[in-house]
Amino acid sequence: MASTRGKVIKCRAAVAWEAGKPLVIEEVEVAPPQANEVRLKILYTALCHTDVYFWEAKVYSSNFICSLYLVTFQIVESVGEGVTDLAPGDHVLPVFTGECKACAHCKSEESNMCDLLRINTDRGVMIGDGQSRFSINGKPIYHFVGTSTFSEYTVVHVGCVAKINPSAPLDKVCILSCGISTGLGATLNVAKPPKGSTVAIFGLGAVGLAAAEGARIAGASRIIGVDLNPSRFNEAKKFGVNEFVNPKDHDKPVQQVLAEMTNGGVDRSVECTGNVDAMISAFECVHDGWGVAVLVGVPHKDAVFKTNPMNVLNERTLKGTFFGNYKPRSDLPSVVEMYMKKELEIEKFITHEVPFSEINKAFDYMLQGVSLRCIIRMEG
Amino acid sequence: MASTRGKVIKCRAAVAWEAGKPLVIEEVEVAPPQANEVRLKILYTALCHTDVYFWEAKVYSSNFICSLYLVTFQIVESVGEGVTDLAPGDHVLPVFTGECKACAHCKSEESNMCDLLRINTDRGVMIGDGQSRFSINGKPIYHFVGTSTFSEYTVVHVGCVAKINPSAPLDKVCILSCGISTGLGATLNVAKPPKGSTVAIFGLGAVGLAAAEGARIAGASRIIGVDLNPSRFNEAKKFGVNEFVNPKDHDKPVQQVLAEMTNGGVDRSVECTGNVDAMISAFECVHDGWGVAVLVGVPHKDAVFKTNPMNVLNERTLKGTFFGNYKPRSDLPSVVEMYMKKELEIEKFITHEVPFSEINKAFDYMLQGVSLRCIIRMEG
Repeated sequence: MASTRGKVIKCRAAVAWEAGKPLVIEEVEVAPPQANEVRLKILYTALCHTDVYFWEAKVYSSNFICSLYLVTFQIVESVGEGVTDLAPGDHVLPVFTGECKACAHCKSEESNMCDLLRINTDRGVMIGDGQSRFSINGKPIYHFVGTSTFSEYTVVHVGCVAKINPSAPLDKVCILSCGISTGLGATLNVAKPPKGSTVAIFGLGAVGLAAAEGARIAGASRIIGVDLNPSRFNEAKKFGVNEFVNPKDHDKPVQQVLAEMTNGGVDRSVECTGNVDAMISAFECVHDGWGVAVLVGVPHKDAVFKTNPMNVLNERTLKGTFFGNYKPRSDLPSVVEMYMKKELEIEKFITHEVPFSEINKAFDYMLQGVSLRCIIRMEG
Repeated sequence: MASTRGKVIKCRAAVAWEAGKPLVIEEVEVAPPQANEVRLKILYTALCHTDVYFWEAKVYSSNFICSLYLVTFQIVESVGEGVTDLAPGDHVLPVFTGECKACAHCKSEESNMCDLLRINTDRGVMIGDGQSRFSINGKPIYHFVGTSTFSEYTVVHVGCVAKINPSAPLDKVCILSCGISTGLGATLNVAKPPKGSTVAIFGLGAVGLAAAEGARIAGASRIIGVDLNPSRFNEAKKFGVNEFVNPKDHDKPVQQVLAEMTNGGVDRSVECTGNVDAMISAFECVHDGWGVAVLVGVPHKDAVFKTNPMNVLNERTLKGTFFGNYKPRSDLPSVVEMYMKKELEIEKFITHEVPFSEINKAFDYMLQGVSLRCIIRMEG
């Protein structure tokens, strides 16, 4: 890789020229990394709902023309000035949110919401100099959430890169950069269900199933999936979900249904839909005295969470989490190790695989709701 | 005391014959304790806001004619069948909520909301046989919240009685049966502020000052009192409150004022007013990433807690507590020990003292807002 160090690399990238339109594979120039940056060679990447969400431009982003991005596995090509803990050849996971290790959040044992490198969906440029490292014939192409992995090479701030075990299989652990860790950590790091407890999971998409996987790993004995789509229950069984509630099957509020099923309420709940009514149900379905509800799904910006405060006073806890409370650089390597030790089962999340040239198929699978995770092989 | 065992005792009790009218000291008959009950000789008692609240009949209670009750110190006179862990002469604190040690809540390490003996303001009778142990000329006088300590003798379920260190001073530790432990435990057991952290206390009444005392004991460095009444700040300084915010002094929401004072939010907040707007402020003023808000004050029954769910998602925690999460029998003895070791300063809560014959003065002090705790000496 030494031959490319310090030089512009020309390579293929999938560019979203227009909201909701298929990505176009273009030849792009990738500039060398500047201070506190690393340039990565992408081997495998994947798609999260967040990609689709922004690609559909449901949220306005001033820098929409971007090469997209989220979940990925990569190898360091070269590093910029000031980067001491990564070297060419290191195996890494780039993450959409970072860890500067210097701010109050990074110094807190409880927070992973880095002040400097917290997810920013509008920035589109590197934080160091406000420029993009991508261009086509000299015209800048914007980054997305600091990773931009739908490209054979990308440049990322060193604070968004987790160095992992080099023997971890590249085409599997790449999915740990995003929603899978988000759901898993929501349960393991935040809800913390005791062994033998009862956990309700609201929403059985990939994040919810990762939350269920966390409950299975924690030794929960009843894992109750709540979803409006009954076809998801069968797949969810693989992730430890052993009971299913479809709110549409009941006249009463689902929190009441769950309380009746569990002698007063579940011990823990994890909300992965982002629907505010589901959030309220997820909170009100936990047992008084000890129940903990964890919100994961991102709500509509005008949503209002409402509850009778006595539900709180009766010793229920409401918590929220971002990226499963994992600090990207400090904690992600240990999630990879959970997989290496066979505690965490990653394979069951990977339902599809496509070569880079067919990246738009990955969007189709996600839109049709047929895939959990679709791996994109960059060499294809 | 053996001479009274198994017999009806005639003694003085302060009876609330009518809502909001002065209590009347009457001669009452106190029946012997039945199975799982103990009869206690009252030496010192005190008054909580809850007493005044029910005495004013702000909440409808079908058993209003009751000898009132809450905070007290007592000595066991005799015990009923099945009582093995208490004996005549033991020094005890009776508590308005109990601990049966057998239900799911008592078996949980996290809950103190006993299924059998959780506070019940409507019952007015003993749980064993549905009868009162108090009467005047054979006509029953109802109990209140299972303690009824405005009487020289009372009968209490054994699950509501904490056996304490016999060398603890009776006229001091009697105030630990109620609001003081509630506020103290809200901070020490639930908010758990780290040493050096910043804590906001909403409401500087006795419960809020006890919450501040907890923050002081935990080693918080900034303890910010929030109250609409600026005259409370001076007294609050004795409890560790070192900054004061009066929401009336600001045009912007108090949560914003606090966030600006603390570089993004306080580490912990404890809400002791019961006002739902204060609850919302107490939640929204904690720092993202790690902030914890604890609700203590009891809201109006129709109150609705509302917040934008992103406030939760950004890693804030909302918790509620009841009696400071102390299990009455298991944990209250250790609160007495905190006082004995001079970690907890009780004396500063005791602002007044009256003989039993002047019990209505204690109500007046509370109504006028001039007292924190007024000790009532039964021998007077």
